[in-house]
Amino acid sequence: MRFTIVRDELVKSINVAFRAISSKVSYPVLENLKLDLDDMGLSITGSNFEISIKTLIPYSDGERDIIRNYKKGSALIKGKLFADITRSMDDEEITFDVIDNNATITDNHSEYRINCIRPEEYPDLDLEAIGTELVLSKENFHAICEQTAFAASTKEQRPVLTALNLEAENGVLTATATDAARMARKSISIADDVKFVANVPARMMVEVDHLLENLAEVSISFSDKKALFKLGRTVVATRLIAGDYPNTKNIVPKITSYALEVNGADLLKAIARANLLSMDRENVVDLSMSDDGISISAKSSQVGSAIEKIDNFKFEGSQLRVSFNSEFVSAAVRALGAEDVTMAFVGEMKPFVIKNTKDDSIIQVVTPVRTY
Amino acid sequence: MRFTIVRDELVKSINVAFRAISSKVSYPVLENLKLDLDDMGLSITGSNFEISIKTLIPYSDGERDIIRNYKKGSALIKGKLFADITRSMDDEEITFDVIDNNATITDNHSEYRINCIRPEEYPDLDLEAIGTELVLSKENFHAICEQTAFAASTKEQRPVLTALNLEAENGVLTATATDAARMARKSISIADDVKFVANVPARMMVEVDHLLENLAEVSISFSDKKALFKLGRTVVATRLIAGDYPNTKNIVPKITSYALEVNGADLLKAIARANLLSMDRENVVDLSMSDDGISISAKSSQVGSAIEKIDNFKFEGSQLRVSFNSEFVSAAVRALGAEDVTMAFVGEMKPFVIKNTKDDSIIQVVTPVRTY
Repeated sequence: MRFTIVRDELVKSINVAFRAISSKVSYPVLENLKLDLDDMGLSITGSNFEISIKTLIPYSDGERDIIRNYKKGSALIKGKLFADITRSMDDEEITFDVIDNNATITDNHSEYRINCIRPEEYPDLDLEAIGTELVLSKENFHAICEQTAFAASTKEQRPVLTALNLEAENGVLTATATDAARMARKSISIADDVKFVANVPARMMVEVDHLLENLAEVSISFSDKKALFKLGRTVVATRLIAGDYPNTKNIVPKITSYALEVNGADLLKAIARANLLSMDRENVVDLSMSDDGISISAKSSQVGSAIEKIDNFKFEGSQLRVSFNSEFVSAAVRALGAEDVTMAFVGEMKPFVIKNTKDDSIIQVVTPVRTY
Repeated sequence: MRFTIVRDELVKSINVAFRAISSKVSYPVLENLKLDLDDMGLSITGSNFEISIKTLIPYSDGERDIIRNYKKGSALIKGKLFADITRSMDDEEITFDVIDNNATITDNHSEYRINCIRPEEYPDLDLEAIGTELVLSKENFHAICEQTAFAASTKEQRPVLTALNLEAENGVLTATATDAARMARKSISIADDVKFVANVPARMMVEVDHLLENLAEVSISFSDKKALFKLGRTVVATRLIAGDYPNTKNIVPKITSYALEVNGADLLKAIARANLLSMDRENVVDLSMSDDGISISAKSSQVGSAIEKIDNFKFEGSQLRVSFNSEFVSAAVRALGAEDVTMAFVGEMKPFVIKNTKDDSIIQVVTPVRTY
């Protein structure tokens, strides 16, 4: 196998495939990127079994040759080293050549000789699309990731909570994330005939979102065990998380007795400032509401106290005081990306809702912290 | 004690004094910043005993009042909390008030109540200038720090090597740093009548350099045990390091048999690229010189090898191969900040010189690594 390639294109594609190689590799062969030069062009594949990414560099982009002077074949090369080397080289083109498991990477100034292992040692990754395909615009996919993924659990005790639950039915795709103390849900319109339920690792959704960068859309398909994303010349496969997703349908309270409408930025600032005194109950602040005023406060017996007034608000209901994790509420408010947010409460200890005052497609629910 | 103050000015000055409060405080009272409101204005002092910083906010900057509605006095307040609170507040002015060791920090939205300790518990820091004063321009002070401080040791085994050795005599100030494996020296012209030798912690020189930011000059004075820096409205005191500085006069070779002149950027890139294969002997690369060519190389028995050619060079001498720590040579080349650098060698295992081809005031010396 050999080829001379435009370095920028190679570096870009290595960076894409390398995202799949986690820093801690459990299986040594997966430290490598797999290179395959065939009729289509140069494919670069990286995998850590949880996620696999394969990206294609074509021979030509229509205007200029990207790959020339080549001989087809396959090779494995240590991913981090290959990324570091190609990134630090200077010339416009570099030449890659493998003979007898010895790779050379050269340009006019540099000559690297790297020991390789046989390409046959790389596991067989099935990266073919299966089942119904759902095409989402970059904007919709990004909205799902940004507005819900943060609420998934990062702990492995209940693996299914590390997933984003995607459910397509009756022309609506609903994405739900919860770590049991909070929940985020986003709905978007899709074609009527798509129907599925899948638990995709939330971190992997965010990875795909990063890769979407300059592309317009992504196509998703599912098998029993994996999700496959096609984005431009790149294919990403990720395992699904087994197990039933908890029933979150009834978490959103249907009837609420208190409603507070405030400016999102004002609320975030007030929470951040009060939170500076939340050392006694880590990150817990109190929201006090009445017709007379709204305030956020925190108190430490050793250090002192903070009270933040919020001047502009609309409040419906009698007076109420709710304690909550400041990070959960701040993340929810930020995810709404809205100028004004509406918080709706059932009572002191019931999960409460945070919504974009002007957009019903996204809802955030947070469970209060018990006061004592 | 009470005052209403322009928040921006307070935040800026807190940030200056807070630099002295290290993250690990050995003596609890030093977690605090000391505030003193007297005839001059508001002084804010931070210290960790190794370095003390006191900075003054005047009542007025000539154009507008900075401090108003005040009552003189002193207070201690937890430095990190005070910095976080004042930074996150929103209004243009804030009011600070202390009664019976209870501080309140308020503006139109926020009200913080903070428990304080008595100002008398703060240690007495002597921040008066002593002895001859030497005034250096910001440019000269910055050049000293940037071109030499990196070569000081960061290990405490030989404390004197963590210092920058400053020696003023016959109209020349010479700054020397060495960690025993390399040395950096910078000389600048000063007034004829200043004479001193002092070992100032290199880290503290860099701290002062940061604080110089928008100022034109710094004045330095020394006692037996400390150095005092005056910069604008800020005074910085740092202990000197006891012990004799090693004699570095003879480290710079007087006669060299090999001279290599190369572009500094080319050299840095070639070293960085070859260094990617230096895993067997950590960060050690080889420089091979002859009339035929210059190359930098590294080799790992497991992984492979790298050879980097340098195309443009002038070389005087027969052929020579020198192994060195790539980080030491790269840091030295960067510190020179020169387009072209000259490396001068005595032989394979002798310390070699790296100089700015056009500026003799700065010299870098690196000891080769033994090849085996």
